[in-house]
Amino acid sequence: MDIHAYMQKVGQQARAASRQMATVTTAKKNATLLAIADRINATRDELKLQNQEDLARGRANGLTDAMLDRLEFTDERLDQIIEGLKQVATLPDLIGEITDMSYRPSGIQVGKMRVPLGVIGMIYESRPNVTIEAASLCIKSGNAAILRGGSEAIASNHALAQCIRDALKSSGLNEHTVQVIETTDRACVGELITMDEYVDVIIPRGGKGLIERISKDARIPVIKHLDGICHVYIDDEADPKKAIDIAINSKTHRYGVCNAMETLLINDGVADIFLPVLADAFAEKGVELRGCEKTQQYIKCVAATQDDWSEEYLAPILSIKVVDSMEQAIKHINHYGSHHTDTLVSENYSKARLFMAAVDSSSVMINASTRFADGFEYGLGAEIGISTDKIHARGPVGLEGLTSQKYVVFGDGHIRT
Amino acid sequence: MDIHAYMQKVGQQARAASRQMATVTTAKKNATLLAIADRINATRDELKLQNQEDLARGRANGLTDAMLDRLEFTDERLDQIIEGLKQVATLPDLIGEITDMSYRPSGIQVGKMRVPLGVIGMIYESRPNVTIEAASLCIKSGNAAILRGGSEAIASNHALAQCIRDALKSSGLNEHTVQVIETTDRACVGELITMDEYVDVIIPRGGKGLIERISKDARIPVIKHLDGICHVYIDDEADPKKAIDIAINSKTHRYGVCNAMETLLINDGVADIFLPVLADAFAEKGVELRGCEKTQQYIKCVAATQDDWSEEYLAPILSIKVVDSMEQAIKHINHYGSHHTDTLVSENYSKARLFMAAVDSSSVMINASTRFADGFEYGLGAEIGISTDKIHARGPVGLEGLTSQKYVVFGDGHIRT
Repeated sequence: MDIHAYMQKVGQQARAASRQMATVTTAKKNATLLAIADRINATRDELKLQNQEDLARGRANGLTDAMLDRLEFTDERLDQIIEGLKQVATLPDLIGEITDMSYRPSGIQVGKMRVPLGVIGMIYESRPNVTIEAASLCIKSGNAAILRGGSEAIASNHALAQCIRDALKSSGLNEHTVQVIETTDRACVGELITMDEYVDVIIPRGGKGLIERISKDARIPVIKHLDGICHVYIDDEADPKKAIDIAINSKTHRYGVCNAMETLLINDGVADIFLPVLADAFAEKGVELRGCEKTQQYIKCVAATQDDWSEEYLAPILSIKVVDSMEQAIKHINHYGSHHTDTLVSENYSKARLFMAAVDSSSVMINASTRFADGFEYGLGAEIGISTDKIHARGPVGLEGLTSQKYVVFGDGHIRT
Repeated sequence: MDIHAYMQKVGQQARAASRQMATVTTAKKNATLLAIADRINATRDELKLQNQEDLARGRANGLTDAMLDRLEFTDERLDQIIEGLKQVATLPDLIGEITDMSYRPSGIQVGKMRVPLGVIGMIYESRPNVTIEAASLCIKSGNAAILRGGSEAIASNHALAQCIRDALKSSGLNEHTVQVIETTDRACVGELITMDEYVDVIIPRGGKGLIERISKDARIPVIKHLDGICHVYIDDEADPKKAIDIAINSKTHRYGVCNAMETLLINDGVADIFLPVLADAFAEKGVELRGCEKTQQYIKCVAATQDDWSEEYLAPILSIKVVDSMEQAIKHINHYGSHHTDTLVSENYSKARLFMAAVDSSSVMINASTRFADGFEYGLGAEIGISTDKIHARGPVGLEGLTSQKYVVFGDGHIRT
């Protein structure tokens, strides 16, 4: 197989499909999403059969139980996928929305119109449900998509691709609106991230290594999600109950997620009261604590090294640093954090205002758990990823992140003089 | 001089300054802009003296008269620069604006807050007034800036940098908020566009070659402005006067600008009436016409080659193509155009709606000259560039393009359950 020629064809087909998608009605896009749900429901047995092939190969290749679990289509998972499609169908259609329309002194009327980005390239690992999530969000936002899933899920992804294709055809849409790469050849990724003529944005979902590699080689803008080194700062004017609840929840609600707290910062004025209570609570949950020198004066814990401040544990480990002031906490967060999600616990109004403005993170919170940084919790209706970039989309990315705005100008024969 | 070490220091200073700028008050930012204006006014003689040095070197190096003209500080130009600073001071401050704040079912309150991008790297050629334009927009939007002007203008840029530095100091701001690179060594550009730790976005302004080189090598997002291959499509339901006025104005108002029309598309149903009138008008203005086969049946002109459809002339040359339908015109625009600015001339309501949705350009116009695609005409108050990208900023880029939005979350001790 000539990978270059194959990917060029995929790109051309995607571009052609994206041109057609730009003017497809909301009703037709929603009908297509429901048709995909119907196809998945009607072909459960076939989907599970193909999925078994992936699972068998995965077992033979020594995938861990956790990886095999993420790969598996149970009826419950298929129900969730179907439910997800129906939910995206109920979301408002952003495309065509015109805002800020105003008359200019010249007499022209200028506004901004929300439009699809064009062609979205997605690169992701293992979980095959991402195939349907990505397809549904791209269709709803009027984009074409090129999807490159993990080789572990190739048979499952092909079976899902068939459902999508059938649904696109049944609704009279271009069947190339969503294309799933047919080969596991890694050269496809290299082609995909450099076809700037045919692809408008790349969204990688996977480990940090994958995302860094893609960002480095891409010739196309990448919406990337690197680490989540999230902080909670407990101020000396913090409400004790809120402080304890938020610290415990931010760390222990789930460990392997990007919006979990990795470093706790605490004001020296309250460290002696709060730290022993927190140490007991974390010990009960089995969380290892690594503290700065001052922390070690208040509680028994492992000594934190310099590396701990920039480590995303994704595990029951927490680093703790005692600071003299909120200003010092903000400096620490902006320097060692990953600009993801950071919380202040304080009852002081002026500190809340300063923390909000000064912390350079995609989500800045006051008196709330970092775990709320999530597309569904924020009401985006769906999430295609979380961006740690500042450009284009920042934080949880929903449908709006898959769109752009163009200027529209209405005149009546107006010319510039 | 160790360029790497020098640029690292510049980057670190810029990052530190950007952290401070994030919480500077509107009043202080405006006062700084007015202080720069005062410094420029007070040091006119010194500025002109330094500028004479650049002009003398430019003459010795054989710069064209046009380039020398763009380089020169006349009193009128300095007045314009001062006026520009005062205008930016009167623009509303977007930073801190909170929108879309709403309560979620969990009880948290979520909204978006407009924040500076951080550190802007500008790379530009010859015209030294860009130094002040860029500095003023970056200060107003709460960003730090690293400015790398052309070597032809190095003495002028340094003199302006001194004015900026003095003003920053007099207002009590970090003097590194705006840094002008001190050396003409080209290695600085390579460093600047790869310091992703210290620079958040690169804005190049200059020829297509410069911008393509920078985009290729950058490790930081680039807001880029490539070519402007703009179209006017005259529909068979066009108002004759509007069609003629818009075609002539779009082409001949100014030739060397990105928003000038380069290709005229005209419906076959009206080509026999309009083309002879247009040919006379363009002949009078000295515009060379290059037509497709059909065009040549209606008027005397040079035969257009395939290359003409994707050529940005920036000169009194116009390619003309006769099409059978608006659909064919849209296909031509999306295929050969540069997604910059395209106009439909028609009185038909449904065609206007379709053209707006289907043309994939940063500005889509109905019955208006392409020459209106401009930050000032659109009411942005100022323009730092025009983006031909779809990501982040599209079309004319004003203050908003130098900002980002982060999520802010207000809770009252809320945790996820």
